[in-house]
Order: sequence, then structure tokens, then C-alpha cells
Amino acid sequence: MGTTARGSAPGGEIEEMLDAHEQLAQRIVDREAELPPRSPGALPDDLRPAAAGRPLAAVVEALGKVLDRTPSAASPRFFNQLFGGRDRAATLAEMLVPLTNTSMYTFKVAGTQVLLEQEVLARMTRFAGFPDGEGSLTPGGSLSNLLAMMIARNEALEHAREEGVGGRATAVYTSDQGHYSIRKNAGILGLGRRAVREIPSDHRGRMRVEALRSALLRDRADGILPLMINATAGTTVLGAFDPISEIADLAAEQGVWLHVDGALGASALLSPQHRGLLEGVDRADSLTWNAHKMMGVPLSCSALLLRRRGLLTGHLNEQADYLFQADHDALNPGTRSIQCGRRNDALKLWAAWMHHGDEGYRQRIDKLFALARHAARRIAGDPAFELLLEPESINVCFCVRGHSSPALCRTLDQRRVLKIGHGMALGRRAIRLVCVNPDLDETAIDAALDSILETAASLSPPTGGTISESGSCGANNVV
Amino acid sequence: MGTTARGSAPGGEIEEMLDAHEQLAQRIVDREAELPPRSPGALPDDLRPAAAGRPLAAVVEALGKVLDRTPSAASPRFFNQLFGGRDRAATLAEMLVPLTNTSMYTFKVAGTQVLLEQEVLARMTRFAGFPDGEGSLTPGGSLSNLLAMMIARNEALEHAREEGVGGRATAVYTSDQGHYSIRKNAGILGLGRRAVREIPSDHRGRMRVEALRSALLRDRADGILPLMINATAGTTVLGAFDPISEIADLAAEQGVWLHVDGALGASALLSPQHRGLLEGVDRADSLTWNAHKMMGVPLSCSALLLRRRGLLTGHLNEQADYLFQADHDALNPGTRSIQCGRRNDALKLWAAWMHHGDEGYRQRIDKLFALARHAARRIAGDPAFELLLEPESINVCFCVRGHSSPALCRTLDQRRVLKIGHGMALGRRAIRLVCVNPDLDETAIDAALDSILETAASLSPPTGGTISESGSCGANNVV
Repeated sequence: MGTTARGSAPGGEIEEMLDAHEQLAQRIVDREAELPPRSPGALPDDLRPAAAGRPLAAVVEALGKVLDRTPSAASPRFFNQLFGGRDRAATLAEMLVPLTNTSMYTFKVAGTQVLLEQEVLARMTRFAGFPDGEGSLTPGGSLSNLLAMMIARNEALEHAREEGVGGRATAVYTSDQGHYSIRKNAGILGLGRRAVREIPSDHRGRMRVEALRSALLRDRADGILPLMINATAGTTVLGAFDPISEIADLAAEQGVWLHVDGALGASALLSPQHRGLLEGVDRADSLTWNAHKMMGVPLSCSALLLRRRGLLTGHLNEQADYLFQADHDALNPGTRSIQCGRRNDALKLWAAWMHHGDEGYRQRIDKLFALARHAARRIAGDPAFELLLEPESINVCFCVRGHSSPALCRTLDQRRVLKIGHGMALGRRAIRLVCVNPDLDETAIDAALDSILETAASLSPPTGGTISESGSCGANNVV
Repeated sequence: MGTTARGSAPGGEIEEMLDAHEQLAQRIVDREAELPPRSPGALPDDLRPAAAGRPLAAVVEALGKVLDRTPSAASPRFFNQLFGGRDRAATLAEMLVPLTNTSMYTFKVAGTQVLLEQEVLARMTRFAGFPDGEGSLTPGGSLSNLLAMMIARNEALEHAREEGVGGRATAVYTSDQGHYSIRKNAGILGLGRRAVREIPSDHRGRMRVEALRSALLRDRADGILPLMINATAGTTVLGAFDPISEIADLAAEQGVWLHVDGALGASALLSPQHRGLLEGVDRADSLTWNAHKMMGVPLSCSALLLRRRGLLTGHLNEQADYLFQADHDALNPGTRSIQCGRRNDALKLWAAWMHHGDEGYRQRIDKLFALARHAARRIAGDPAFELLLEPESINVCFCVRGHSSPALCRTLDQRRVLKIGHGMALGRRAIRLVCVNPDLDETAIDAALDSILETAASLSPPTGGTISESGSCGANNVV
């Protein structure tokens, strides 16, 4: 790299930084096939800032030590979360973001980056079936859901934004498999967590629409105002899809805002084979869609999409003429955002979409679903495993017979075999294998499953947990 | 770079990505001395994702075109925002973040990165004078303020989190120079924007404590519950500091939560010379501190700090055992966050602090304040300018006599001379020069001021705006 011509200062000064970046990036990649040692103790002094500074070279050395103790989501041993792998186009773009350090509130400051955000949002709204829609990138699915709930609240309680929510009892509906942010957000928004009704789900983890209807009518009869129904497209543990179309019928009949939390599952809209899982989403009022999950974009890249244009400005705009100047507000996304300063989450999604195209994304989604089906077949065909149910999307939930899922996951982590988690599903505590890394193939999935069995076999007697009479992993066993 | 050994797949595949990154980074640096052309029109087709994908090389070419139209905050012509420059250690760290793609909710997933977040937060709480405090990195100052307001609300209204805020009238106090997020957040939190009392400020833009007291007592007399006083440390336009100590006396006397919005100004705590501006902050209940402003860390890196430990968990924790597993919650910052998935905003601040040390940061803060004083002297000494007031921190507000500030700023932008903004201050619409880039020196500040005068001189007759009889820039002239 030393031969590359460099600009004058401050250009000359970035050579050391770029060299160090290359070296550390290579170190991450070289070591990520193995998981790092667990070291939750106190930081050693050489990894603590001090009164005196250190040369950049010393910081690079310290960064190396830290990275050696940081799990990589691109590791073939990483199945713990709803993201994984490393998308080159998106990663490249994300590594450019701090170099211009653009804040995405005005065109004056962010330039063409603002148009890229509009472009990816427009593309997402089209896939959602919102031809007159709009959207905003937010710092994560929980905050996308928060914005949706706030807008739903304000639309139902006309004066809420100006005068507060007041004392009227309200209700928000989600399934018992829905994400915890719905409850958390109800607390934040002044509705109270108790306003959330957890509707039972069926044998596939899908919200029961008749139970939803009953709850809604019961609340109405009690004088409680229904604010929003949250339908989940891709539940956190099972990856299940609520029946959006039926729920949309009910929402329309009852005049209640319908939000779809597709943080995980909205990416299925990119696949003609799987988009039927979201049938009816075009009748929703709002949709959360995280590009940092199935679309493989680095954290975080979450979109809140709205079917009707104008609501974001109407419920978020503030007078701030020190900031919003020189351009029409259509070019100032800060007027439609929950944030003021906004880091650039658009460039990475734009770059990835440029690289893959719709067609590449279709293939990616289809591959992830196929990997999950492969894993399910492999699990169902091995009597040492118990498959909880056929996966509806990319999460495969299963037990190892005779073993507690939490204890097994903990051992897999402690022995640096796999990063994998567990969750409650259908009354059972199951291991959750998330097939979200398209760089993996069936062999890699098989290897992960083999390593689970090997680790389980090495545990004799089985590690705690309730063993039911049938020898399968126990119901409701806890950590 | 080609001679560097590469790991096996997927390591081999990142060579193209790292080469492209180096090339594009160099392009940004080489071109940033000049501002990019303004091109707010529609994106050309070659910059739009399509059905078909494109090779990575084509995406790299497209990225180059986009970067050529993106203003860089490291440009010596960039004075538009409360951030600027390029910190090498912080930028290096931020460019590593997407490579491991850590989510900062659990130790299991994020490893040592969680300890780095704890370390920088502990360091910040010590500077704030919160020896038993705690904190959370949030996606920006508006959201740090939101969390503070929510906790203040919940502490004052005991059942707010569970049962909602109810119909009780409440009030939040901030100065007429405070950030717009206070009002916006009151809307989000269900209090209503009208709950915000804008307290008049004095001739230096500092909140009038007697007016605050009157407003508070008037509300109490009217049966309205005061929830929070927001004192601003570093107002958005003037960079003024409210008298925190006096306000803390009043807050203690009245039993009202005191929040300090130090998004801009809390960094002055790093300088013994300037930390007196925040005297009394150790008696505040909470403090917002953005490291992406004076500390030079790339966007975004905002901390909410609390004087008492336990409040974040108490007001944010949710049951989510699919996620928070395998480690004690002290190691799971997701239980204390407004988000679920959290990008890693800690590594860059940690790396910068390792590099600079407290001592380097002291020097940095002192330099920024000195640059602002230099700019003020230069402005005060030139009859073509009118200095609005001596800067209290790093924002220098002034007019060019006979010229409308908005029109002049617009021309400076259109002609690619400077990115600089204007704001209302002390009843005047002034140009705001922010001295936040430590890579600039007095010569660069002089050059910026010269270019403003040259541009103004080229505008004949002066561009719009009201000209007052004295020939100074008019009061209350608008865009």
C-alpha cells in the first residue's frame, strides 16, 4: 500500500490509519473461524484510557487485543442472532460512512446521501405495496415500532401530541410471541405497559384472530380505546407470521391502526416464493423492516414505512430554523425523524441493493429459507433431536432429547463451539438455530448440528433441566 | 497492498473490498478541500438499484460518484454543524465495527466490547461528578434527552410506566434557547408538547432562573405537576451555558428532576479551564453528553448519564429470556437501553480516549475554545462584521453589516465557498461559526471569515433582508 499516492495534509495523515485498518480487518477475518475466549472480567489497565495519551500504534495494538475477544457475526459458528454473515458491498459502504461523517438531517449537510435514503425507502415501500407511502430509517426495530405506535396513538387520540394522552384507557394488541418492544414502547409513550394485550398464538406461533377479536370487543365494551394492532411478520423465536390478511380485515372493520412488525420477516417481500407469508401487508398502516437482518446489511438499518404520506412530518416535525434551511423540507429528512443528528444508515443498504439487485435479494431470501428447511429435515431425521415444528421462515427450533436447551447452549458458548441461543416456543424451551448467513451452505449447517450433538454426548449425565418421561427435553425448563 | 497475505475464504474475498475501501477513502480525502457541487435533483439511473445486480466494481464506481456529491465534515470549508474534523483513532475504530458487526445487548454476542462501553461510561460519569452513576450510549442527543425525560416522568408519576401518564397536567421547563428535542420528546412521551415551558433567557442566552422559579411556582399553584427542569450546557445557536448551580438549588428546593442537556457542552468537563461552565452538574439527576461533537468521535455517540445507579434497568428492562441469557445482567447492556439491537457506538470513543488520554482531550477542548475566542476577536476588530456577543464556548455568532445572514449563507453554499448556517440569537438572525474542528488553526478560521466578506462584497446590492438604520444586519430577518 505504501506506493499509493497520498494527498497533502490532512490526506497524508490517513495513511497510517488505513494501513492499520487493513491489518486489523485481516486479523478479524483470519481468526473468526474460531470463537474468541470468554473474558467477562475487569479490563486490564492496558485496555483502559488513562490521563496520558498513547501513540496511534499502541491503540492499534490494543484494538487487536479487543478484537481477539469480540465474537464476529461472520463466523461460521455464529447462529445466536437474527443477523449474520458479511455482505461485502454493504460493509464497504459502512466503512466509508465515518470518513465523510454525514448527518442525515438536511440536504445541505448530507448531499446526495439524502437521495440514496429516499431511494431505498421508495424501493421498500413499493415492495410493501404502499405506492403512496413514505418512510424513515431509524436506529433499530424497537424504535421503528415506537414511531409506529406513536403515530397510531396520535391518530386515535387527536390532541395527544399537543396536550398529552390524558386519562383515557387505551389498548394495544400483539401476540404472546410478539417482540418485547411493543410493551416497552407502551411504557415509553405514556400509555402504560398494561395497555398491551397479549393475544394467544396457535400451534404454529401465529396470533389467533378470533382471540384478537374477542379482546378488542371486550375492550370496546369496557370503554377502552383500541389504538393499534401489531401483527408480527417473523416472530423472534419461531420466525412465525401472523395472518396479516385476516387481521387487516378485522382492523378495517374496527377502524384500528394496523402495524406489521416485520423487523425479521418483511424481507420475505423480496421473494415471490415467500412473500405470500405477508399477504395483506399492503393494507397495513405501517411496517417495520430491518435490513440488518435477512438483507445482510451491518447494524443497524431499520425502516419504518407508512402507507400514507405526510404522517411522519405531521407527527415529528419541529420548528428548528437553525437547522432546516436552504432546501425544501422534502430534502430534509430530519423533519421526519425521531432523531436530530442521524448517522448515515442508508449508504450500506443502497450499496448492497445496487450490488445484488432485486434478483440477488430474491435468491438470497430463497437460499436462507432453503437452508432452514434443510436444517429442519436433518433434525427431524435424527432421533437424537426433536424438531418443535416445521419452520415457517429461517428460525429452526428444536431440542436435543434428554438435554436442557439453556444448559446445552451455555456449554456450547463456554467451550467456544457455537454461539447459539434458546427461547420459549409452544410451551417448550428450545434451541433456536437462525439460518441468516447466506455464506453458509448445507454442509456448514450440518456441521453446526453435529457439533451440538457431540457436545451433548460429552455431557454425561445430561446437564440439568427437567427431563420429561418421554426422554425429550423438558417443558418450561429455565436457565 | 497486494503482497499482504490473505486468509482463506471468506478471507480471500475481502481483499477486493479492502482495496476498494482504500481507494475510495483516498478519494474522499483528496477532494474534500473543495465542497462538492449541489445536485438535489433526481438520482440518475446508474445510481439506482435495479432488478439486476451489478458487479462489486460497478458499485465501487457508483460509490465514487456519490462520494463526490457528499459534503465531508472534515473539509476545512465545513462549519455548518456542531461536529467536524476527522479523528484518526475514532475513525479507525468505527471502520472496524461493521467487520465484527457486534450488537451491544449482551456479553455473549458482543464480548469485550461490552466492557469498553462500561469503561467509557464510567469515565464520563466520573467527569460528571456522578461517582455512583450509570449510563447508556444512545443513538443521539435527542434520544438521550428522551430517556432522561421518561425517567423523570416515571419517577414523578409513580405508575406511569405500568398504567400510563393519566390525565394529570404536568410541566417540563427549558429555556427559549434549549434544543427542540425537549418539546418533541414531550409529544412522544404522552405529556404533550404544551407541557413544555419556554423560560426566557438573558442577554447571554442563559436561562433566567427567577423566571424559571416564577413559572414553576405558577404551575404548582395551578395544580400542575413539574416533572423536570432541563438546563442546557451549550445551547444550539449561541453555545451558552445555563447557570446550572443556581438551577440545581431551585430543583433541590422544589424537588424537581434536574436534567442537563450537555449534548454540545458537557465535553467542557474535560478541561479544568472551562469545566466551571458546568458548575453544579454533579447535583443534576441526569446529563446528556454527545461524544460526536467536541470529542470528535464519528456520528453518533451520545451518552445519557444518571447520578443514581439502577434507574435505567428499573425503567427500561423487559423480560426477554430468548436474548438476555448466559450472563448476569450487569454484562447485558440491552436491559438498560431504549433499543433492542444496538450498533457498537462504544469502540470509537474508547479508541479515541485511549489515543488522546484525558490530557489530550483537555488540550483539544482548550484549543476549540481558543479558536472561538480568536474568531470573535477577529470579527470584533473588523467593522464589516458585527459580533453578537463574546462566545461562551465554541459557537461564534455574528452578522455582516448590510447583509441578510440567510441570504449570505445560501450564497456561500451555492458557490461552494463554505458550509455554514445561521440561527436566531438575541433577537437577531446571525451567522453561526462553530469552531469544533481541531485540525483547523487560526489561519484557517481567518480564511473562512475572509471568504465570507469576499462573498458579501461580491453581492451588490446586498442580498435581501432588512437593513436597519444603523447599517447592521436587520433584526428578525427571515430566510
